[in-house]
Amino acid sequence: MTSRCWINGVEQAHIGITDRGLQYGDGLFETLAAFDGHCPWFEAHYQRLVAGCDRLAIPLPDKTILLQEVAQAAAGQQRAVIKIMLTSGSGGRGYARPDTLQPSRIVQCHSWPDYPDACWQEGVVLKSCQTRLGCNPALAGIKHLNRLEQVLARNEWSPGEAAEGLMCDLQGKVIEGTMSNLFLVRENALFTPNIDLCGVAGVMRRWVLDNASRLGFETKEVAVSIQDIQQADEVMLTNSLIGLWPVKTFETCHYRPGPVYQALIKYLVTEYPLISTPAMSRLDA
Amino acid sequence: MTSRCWINGVEQAHIGITDRGLQYGDGLFETLAAFDGHCPWFEAHYQRLVAGCDRLAIPLPDKTILLQEVAQAAAGQQRAVIKIMLTSGSGGRGYARPDTLQPSRIVQCHSWPDYPDACWQEGVVLKSCQTRLGCNPALAGIKHLNRLEQVLARNEWSPGEAAEGLMCDLQGKVIEGTMSNLFLVRENALFTPNIDLCGVAGVMRRWVLDNASRLGFETKEVAVSIQDIQQADEVMLTNSLIGLWPVKTFETCHYRPGPVYQALIKYLVTEYPLISTPAMSRLDA
Repeated sequence: MTSRCWINGVEQAHIGITDRGLQYGDGLFETLAAFDGHCPWFEAHYQRLVAGCDRLAIPLPDKTILLQEVAQAAAGQQRAVIKIMLTSGSGGRGYARPDTLQPSRIVQCHSWPDYPDACWQEGVVLKSCQTRLGCNPALAGIKHLNRLEQVLARNEWSPGEAAEGLMCDLQGKVIEGTMSNLFLVRENALFTPNIDLCGVAGVMRRWVLDNASRLGFETKEVAVSIQDIQQADEVMLTNSLIGLWPVKTFETCHYRPGPVYQALIKYLVTEYPLISTPAMSRLDA
Repeated sequence: MTSRCWINGVEQAHIGITDRGLQYGDGLFETLAAFDGHCPWFEAHYQRLVAGCDRLAIPLPDKTILLQEVAQAAAGQQRAVIKIMLTSGSGGRGYARPDTLQPSRIVQCHSWPDYPDACWQEGVVLKSCQTRLGCNPALAGIKHLNRLEQVLARNEWSPGEAAEGLMCDLQGKVIEGTMSNLFLVRENALFTPNIDLCGVAGVMRRWVLDNASRLGFETKEVAVSIQDIQQADEVMLTNSLIGLWPVKTFETCHYRPGPVYQALIKYLVTEYPLISTPAMSRLDA
């Protein structure tokens, strides 16, 4: 499948050089999983976009129009990745925006990534990144287009070496993966790092926080140290493409996909049968 | 004058949507002043680009080619602004870059901003911004494309209200303006904030640090507080378009263009007669 792209509803492969998304990273994005032309977490992604637009003072795109464009982009494909970008558009002088913003609403369709089944069944290698996350509550939580820290971190390892990299803030507190959020299990409770100062409020992170209690697991957003990971019973990663991955190796520590992971992924697949990959389904076997 | 733009030497107004500059802010930029088709500080800008390319692991563009493209963009214009952007190009999967980068080398030409003469002669109003700068030594000093903090800060005030906004880090230390660096004068010595953790290593900031001693002024890079600004004899702003501006008002504090500012701007104009605006020249009158 070739990538396709629509800007404000018109299919095109290029954008004006003056777009503030390019000039300053002045915008937001969302990465959605689409199954049979449908994005089961559209509403959660849209709500994060609402929060981002509010924080960055970018006019929110109409939900019905965006949903139509996402459906158009995903149509006819069993599995696809839909990326929405929303920039503040062109114009203004330097950092100053024009008086009236005319945002660029970009909807891209990409092929589904070919993650090996072993990622769900055996778990993945998590590598510790040297690149740190800077803190700024003004940008924390939202999914904005200033992603150099993630780019630098992601390029610290080659494919084959690890599936994901762990990022800490400047004080050494654990925050998240380059493309995922992190959960630890200690004594049947789930812990995930605070993201008040940096990090992304992931859609699957929210799903785990909202649903774990139904399975009898307490959840807490806390300060997390490297030592906490080393001492955890289970470690797992979440994002809206992978769902959940158990971590099998972090530095010298080894883990097995544990009962909390098994319960969560089973519940996820039950709630959203569409997302069930063969790898996920075989977990119960 | 209409803005013109060249990408990798070819004049065009659009860029591929998959460019990593748009997708992640994965790139650098420089803003140069051009006078009669010549950029007097090209070398200093190029050296900062060298530092940025080294930090972000982006292949450095050939200096001769870049200089030719800048000259082409500036040709035939008495005053112009040349913006160079260098992105890591297209490709890769998510944050991971492709194995071989094919950077996008973008050269834009804009009309010269119409700053009033009073900015040099009487000074400007400096406003205190609420938006803070996050700290990250991995990104400090270089002029990268992740500029949301500056965009948010710059949009805290309307034109007419102030010429520039002052930005502090999360600890409240003064760092810089949204588009300029800051110098204070106390007892004939010049002080400018450290930029090890955040801030941009401005070309004119470097010029002041390198040249002030020839005029008998000591310079120091230090931690600067709001109180230091309030107690300063003179406050000035630097960037490569404005050269130097004296600050006349910061919150309840008022200043006059002082002897250190006068000496610096006179020396600047002597060294670079091309940049002398009528406003600068009349300072000696």
